[in-house]
Amino acid sequence: MPKRNDNTINGNFKGRNILSLDQFDLPSLDLLFKTADNLKAIAIDAKPSDILKGTITTLLFFEPSSRTFGSFSTAIKQLGGQTLEIQDPQTVSSVAKGETLEDTIRTFQSYTHAIVMRHPEKGAVQIAASVADIPVINAGDGTGEHPTQALLDMYTIYETCGRLDNLTILCAGDMLNGRTVHSLIRGLSLYKNNTIYLLSPKSLKLTRDDFKNFSQRGIILVEIESEKDIPKYADVWYWTRVQKERFKDLSEYEKVKTRFTVTKELMNTYAKKDMILMHPLPRVGEIHEEIDSDPRSVYLSKEMRNGKYIRMALMALTLGRI
Amino acid sequence: MPKRNDNTINGNFKGRNILSLDQFDLPSLDLLFKTADNLKAIAIDAKPSDILKGTITTLLFFEPSSRTFGSFSTAIKQLGGQTLEIQDPQTVSSVAKGETLEDTIRTFQSYTHAIVMRHPEKGAVQIAASVADIPVINAGDGTGEHPTQALLDMYTIYETCGRLDNLTILCAGDMLNGRTVHSLIRGLSLYKNNTIYLLSPKSLKLTRDDFKNFSQRGIILVEIESEKDIPKYADVWYWTRVQKERFKDLSEYEKVKTRFTVTKELMNTYAKKDMILMHPLPRVGEIHEEIDSDPRSVYLSKEMRNGKYIRMALMALTLGRI
Amino acid sequence: MPKRNDNTINGNFKGRNILSLDQFDLPSLDLLFKTADNLKAIAIDAKPSDILKGTITTLLFFEPSSRTFGSFSTAIKQLGGQTLEIQDPQTVSSVAKGETLEDTIRTFQSYTHAIVMRHPEKGAVQIAASVADIPVINAGDGTGEHPTQALLDMYTIYETCGRLDNLTILCAGDMLNGRTVHSLIRGLSLYKNNTIYLLSPKSLKLTRDDFKNFSQRGIILVEIESEKDIPKYADVWYWTRVQKERFKDLSEYEKVKTRFTVTKELMNTYAKKDMILMHPLPRVGEIHEEIDSDPRSVYLSKEMRNGKYIRMALMALTLGRI
Repeated sequence: MPKRNDNTINGNFKGRNILSLDQFDLPSLDLLFKTADNLKAIAIDAKPSDILKGTITTLLFFEPSSRTFGSFSTAIKQLGGQTLEIQDPQTVSSVAKGETLEDTIRTFQSYTHAIVMRHPEKGAVQIAASVADIPVINAGDGTGEHPTQALLDMYTIYETCGRLDNLTILCAGDMLNGRTVHSLIRGLSLYKNNTIYLLSPKSLKLTRDDFKNFSQRGIILVEIESEKDIPKYADVWYWTRVQKERFKDLSEYEKVKTRFTVTKELMNTYAKKDMILMHPLPRVGEIHEEIDSDPRSVYLSKEMRNGKYIRMALMALTLGRI
Repeated sequence: MPKRNDNTINGNFKGRNILSLDQFDLPSLDLLFKTADNLKAIAIDAKPSDILKGTITTLLFFEPSSRTFGSFSTAIKQLGGQTLEIQDPQTVSSVAKGETLEDTIRTFQSYTHAIVMRHPEKGAVQIAASVADIPVINAGDGTGEHPTQALLDMYTIYETCGRLDNLTILCAGDMLNGRTVHSLIRGLSLYKNNTIYLLSPKSLKLTRDDFKNFSQRGIILVEIESEKDIPKYADVWYWTRVQKERFKDLSEYEKVKTRFTVTKELMNTYAKKDMILMHPLPRVGEIHEEIDSDPRSVYLSKEMRNGKYIRMALMALTLGRI
Repeated sequence: MPKRNDNTINGNFKGRNILSLDQFDLPSLDLLFKTADNLKAIAIDAKPSDILKGTITTLLFFEPSSRTFGSFSTAIKQLGGQTLEIQDPQTVSSVAKGETLEDTIRTFQSYTHAIVMRHPEKGAVQIAASVADIPVINAGDGTGEHPTQALLDMYTIYETCGRLDNLTILCAGDMLNGRTVHSLIRGLSLYKNNTIYLLSPKSLKLTRDDFKNFSQRGIILVEIESEKDIPKYADVWYWTRVQKERFKDLSEYEKVKTRFTVTKELMNTYAKKDMILMHPLPRVGEIHEEIDSDPRSVYLSKEMRNGKYIRMALMALTLGRI
């Protein structure tokens, strides 16, 4: 399976690296979502499947992860594929012995048919992809990208709202560091007539560069700093965690960590009847547990399940089995 | 597969939590043991099986384990099922990021069809079960319960003695803290006319509350403090390790740790010809290695193998595949 | 599957321990290599295979490893087998609780059909094999043996040179501690008319005992201390890492660590056109990266891939499925 170069996917996933959301065009997203639609019954009904039988995928996680690791691992196994799982770099002895990342990648490509990789450093997955002659899938590279998170979020909106255009979306929390919000903005820019409200403390707004660059993609971004500016007709609320690990000054973190919190009162006042409430998780207090049972909450159910379904589709397409 | 409530199993395992030995009634035990009888040839002969094909089970171990982890993992794989294995909570990043146990459980239930869980705190598995809408199986919760250990012990007695009633059993070691002995007493109470001799140093006897409560179940408990009171007609000896980790005062531990030890002489003097010698393992000196080759010793062979067979049966029944 | 004793394999792998290269005779090597030839298309084309379906193999690694662990794990899964993977002895709770190695082995043999074991102490795998009644495969025991590494190296030579006799081989690096070189010498001694040049600093030459013992096997060993003595007609260069972990005096290590390094110039001066350059990896500077793209370099490609193919063949034969 010779690997093609890394530009736009253009509806053909087979043998491709999946490194950035910017590789995705509308036909590719359409194919991915339709494939997820078709495959999810296999997971829900625990149906035997041999779609990936014979393939082995390395899960190479240089950083701990529960949702991304768990959903990739089970996505592959659900389709009858096998995994080689490296969850702890300390067990990769050759890394400890001073081996380069490039040689480590060449090792795992000798044994398997694809590599799913998470790494704390931005750009590390790109280096891996440039070395490997099998598909490399970015499962998060530090402050870089996390394309499959954005794909599952978009799939969740597509599935519940029935469309990915003409939407009003409220994003709240940490707009400055939030990798998932950045990716979601990129993704929704591909579709027409979307407006995103960005609710955050002043200190956690987008950088001016990001604001300008994202806006130039044709999406309308509206920055707000108070709950009272939330538009009552928003189709989606996308809440995020303020990431403690990005703060040098922890007293600064304490000030803003739950500045914006979803409570029953907030929902009653600003959320319309048929909106959905999303969160990439984990949450640490910014959505009250009383909200979990609200039928509009999808973060603990549909959104996580879609993380598995979208990765089932992505692996089946990338490994050329569908 | 909607989950039913957690009371008595009543012969129908499908979709049920398995949290306590007290859920088991005679028809359920009978079904479980017969299923184990039927399935064990698959393991012994390494026969291909697709009984669990399509199912994925999370093994969520917040505490290290070799026998329980290894037997659950291989039981599932032997029947063609898949696992998502979390052996080290440090790799569950969201736990490190401050996520609640409830949200962690909701994550893994989004990806898999059952959760086997071990946790150092009593009651943690019950909390998990109350959150999850898939079966949760207790693989040991601190000083709480460890029902599958008792099930495999009972299956071993059933298989070698041909019955689970009208038995005389000697339990030795730590009666105070021994979770496995407590569970075995509960289990054998379900059957008629069983007598259990409890051999331990005075400081490691059952609490008076436990003694009273267990006795009220209809089983006869006889406490003894010296080897010379061992009845020579006992059908089963169930030896246990004195658990160092429960002692605040280590000099106290040193005094009692091998107070009761199985030697050739002890066997020759007190054990009848067709009894069996069991131990939940690990052992740390309380059974001499010279005893290993005695045909009555089942702790290193049949008893461990049965740990796999009984878990094969339990998973096949709980996942509704048999 | 009763286990036979551990002497020469004599063309029948089924149910055998694989502990030392000295068990291999010519018919066994021939069978192993032909089996690898036949099986490798399954890996290359990601073909579904049920050859090992129904079998479970414990990978019991008391020491971290990436290549040996990864290639055994994927070899088994590629043929439809399952694994029980213990990568970190800290998760083997019973070891922490003071259990003997013997009891740990008896545990894993109760659940699985073969054990692949790595251990930091020489002889530990032999002890395991003496306890187990299922095949035990040595995946490296400290300064002892690492037979499957030598087998994959020999298979690589056989595949590229078309023969294993009448060869001139240059080994370079650490001849004193290099377990892989020692095994390769043993293996090539089985074939006629082989000569091995040993290039190392004086301090890292073979012990005089090893030199004498190896020479008595009929292979010609020539020790050299300078690049200018490399024979220009060598068929194979087998480069190795100087193992930092063996040095008590690190300044001594610094002196010799890259004393012999493969550069473009060295290749141009001493390497013939159709030789191959091998290395067991990891490398830490002793082969320059500019050499990687030389068609004679097989260490990052064919040699690693053969590690998987030879282990596929070994497991299929040992488990009696071919």
